[in-house]
Amino acid sequence: MTEAVQNRPAIGVAVLGMGNVGAEVVRILEENADDLRARVGAPLEIRGVAVRDLSKPRKIDSALLTTDAAALVARDDVDIVVELVGGIDPARELIRTALTGGKSVVSANKALLADYTGELAGAAADAKVDLYFEAAVAGAIPVIRPLMQSLAGDKVERVAGIVNGTTNFILSAMDETGAGYDETLAEAGRLGYAEADPTADVGGYDAAAKAAILASIAFHTRVTAADVYREGITEVTADDLAAAKKFDCTVKLLAICERVVGDGGERVSARVYPALVPLSHPLASVNGAFNAVVVEAENAGRLMFYGQGAGGAPTASAVMGDLVMAARNKVHGGRGPLESTYAELPVASIDDVPTRYYVSMRVADRPGVLAQVAGEFSKRAVSIAAVRQEGAGDDARLIVVTHRAPDRAQSETVAALEDMDAVIKVSSVLRMEGTDD
Amino acid sequence: MTEAVQNRPAIGVAVLGMGNVGAEVVRILEENADDLRARVGAPLEIRGVAVRDLSKPRKIDSALLTTDAAALVARDDVDIVVELVGGIDPARELIRTALTGGKSVVSANKALLADYTGELAGAAADAKVDLYFEAAVAGAIPVIRPLMQSLAGDKVERVAGIVNGTTNFILSAMDETGAGYDETLAEAGRLGYAEADPTADVGGYDAAAKAAILASIAFHTRVTAADVYREGITEVTADDLAAAKKFDCTVKLLAICERVVGDGGERVSARVYPALVPLSHPLASVNGAFNAVVVEAENAGRLMFYGQGAGGAPTASAVMGDLVMAARNKVHGGRGPLESTYAELPVASIDDVPTRYYVSMRVADRPGVLAQVAGEFSKRAVSIAAVRQEGAGDDARLIVVTHRAPDRAQSETVAALEDMDAVIKVSSVLRMEGTDD
Repeated sequence: MTEAVQNRPAIGVAVLGMGNVGAEVVRILEENADDLRARVGAPLEIRGVAVRDLSKPRKIDSALLTTDAAALVARDDVDIVVELVGGIDPARELIRTALTGGKSVVSANKALLADYTGELAGAAADAKVDLYFEAAVAGAIPVIRPLMQSLAGDKVERVAGIVNGTTNFILSAMDETGAGYDETLAEAGRLGYAEADPTADVGGYDAAAKAAILASIAFHTRVTAADVYREGITEVTADDLAAAKKFDCTVKLLAICERVVGDGGERVSARVYPALVPLSHPLASVNGAFNAVVVEAENAGRLMFYGQGAGGAPTASAVMGDLVMAARNKVHGGRGPLESTYAELPVASIDDVPTRYYVSMRVADRPGVLAQVAGEFSKRAVSIAAVRQEGAGDDARLIVVTHRAPDRAQSETVAALEDMDAVIKVSSVLRMEGTDD
Repeated sequence: MTEAVQNRPAIGVAVLGMGNVGAEVVRILEENADDLRARVGAPLEIRGVAVRDLSKPRKIDSALLTTDAAALVARDDVDIVVELVGGIDPARELIRTALTGGKSVVSANKALLADYTGELAGAAADAKVDLYFEAAVAGAIPVIRPLMQSLAGDKVERVAGIVNGTTNFILSAMDETGAGYDETLAEAGRLGYAEADPTADVGGYDAAAKAAILASIAFHTRVTAADVYREGITEVTADDLAAAKKFDCTVKLLAICERVVGDGGERVSARVYPALVPLSHPLASVNGAFNAVVVEAENAGRLMFYGQGAGGAPTASAVMGDLVMAARNKVHGGRGPLESTYAELPVASIDDVPTRYYVSMRVADRPGVLAQVAGEFSKRAVSIAAVRQEGAGDDARLIVVTHRAPDRAQSETVAALEDMDAVIKVSSVLRMEGTDD
């Protein structure tokens, strides 16, 4: 057995990109070569690593480095391409070339996969090779494979997750310290949890790409980033966190993928926004840079997957799992499942999705204001779950939490409140998730 | 594409056993036939269902029922056998026959897989077919596939889980109500959470079989149920739960699979026992009939998987995931990984495994007792982490929690304490898990 394994020809691996994740992938490939060979059934050999800057010192034999990623991908002795460069171009073209050339691909590129999985999976299917991307969502946490394979015989109703570590770090810190958004973002930057330009994270774009990937897999329907309704965390205030506590909640940036049943039959909702989450909900206690994904399926019930959602070594763990499975398929034949979009469910507009609202407003301190405000909600058939009145005089505040109603009715009510004389300012609007009603 | 799929010949499925899980598998196969066909690439057709009693009313076309499981397994038009009869015989022979006949097998049979995976995986490898058993551990929760595939490129250090719903229900209820073991077991029986003969659950045998399966996969080493050190929950008292609370802990029956590094190199420890777990540990809040498994790997860090560990529909979800993947492989070629035992690590004796102890004893109420007791610990190089003295006179009690030391040193200390004049009775001994020191 061991001998047979040793005599099998090596599987050639090209690594594109040697940032945090790439460097860890290269390290694991070198340090754990014996284990990997036993698990694959053949040795894994690095044919080359494509980088942008050859002069940067790196922990690798410099003969393996190249700036010509396209030439590396095209090499005959490369069987699997690990794409870790990120972004759309040139990653898209490199992956497509690899796949059409009969090479399997492992990618952590959420932005690319959110929008081009259809094209790339088609190329992989034609060439009968693998396209794996576990590392594109939630770092080390196995989510793609469980959704695609373990739940292949179930009907997924909902996927809700904390899939962006930067925003979760910021919201957790705001919750803990009571500090405001700007101050906490600056602190996150100092600690290395936020990038110099944090837009992709705090604007919810990163989470939206992941939501598109998760929704596509969960519902066997093509969902792209443009289909995902998106709000970031930039408007979340210290007051919101404090108010959330009074409702036994905290605030989390959630990526939600949901099967919505309405008049037109089943549709898919994919959305990203900061939401109040009850402290009793499993996602409420996911703090700091950790990620977690809750999956609700018809037969499995509620499942939760929790772990490190970012970082070099954790993300490399997910890449390596995909790489070993792709290599094993090269040795033993066969391939893993690709995207399946047979269900072709339409995407629901946020307007039609039932949501709950938390609305905080400064109001005139006089009798009858609550009745007026409540009237605007009831006019649009939005039922109120809880009300708090706080402060007095210039600081009189009214906080309303609603029951579930179509988001359009909720947002139109808020617009009407903003026009009311008695409402000085709607200071905050957040949705509430993780409750049944 | 759809046409091609519809023209593909059906994949024939034989279901052995129609209890809670089998009935749900049959229901899902019938209700979700269209979705399953799209996901597999061919229709799944039930060729027959083997049952013991034909006269029992069941929700299935009676023409599909048979009492002759062997004849059903041998049918030429059966491509995949779903084994849900449990126990060693005749399941072992039925599965072996299926595999050698070129049929893939999906099984939920933890007792069988704990001891005979080697034999069965060998038969599957020879016939180049699949042997999947996600449902054998932790019901609906994907654990086997993530360990075997998602973590295939990582080095698992530790797997610790709550994998038995009955004992977790009992311990959670004891924690909540303050009631004793016998009373709570009776209540669990009334509510359907404990079987008439609860030995397999409360004795830790069920958890030990699952620990063997998890350890085998996590450490690429064959571990059988006999290799697992095992204690059940029958000796856990209301006092233990109360004492645990005073140390900010609760008591959980844990299955622990650990890589232990000692003088002789790496070894594998697999063990099941009730243990004090700090309330801050993620497993502490897993209550009732829920299961959870924490995996710690070198690169991934700590991952947690949580969900329903038993029940017809949740377990059927796991069976169906395996069935779809096995069927997909029949259609597209290839097969999933089987057990890999290349690492062949020796199994460590519990004696050599570093553990922490919680020891509660009734002691004579006189000066110097603590010093004497402490002396017995220090004599064996067991360092004490915390001491509580409670009560007085006949009810004087001493509770000691130790730091980590080889289990033999801990258990020998307890034996010595039992022989001390000053110690009237060692009333409880539990290990403590989920802490670093």
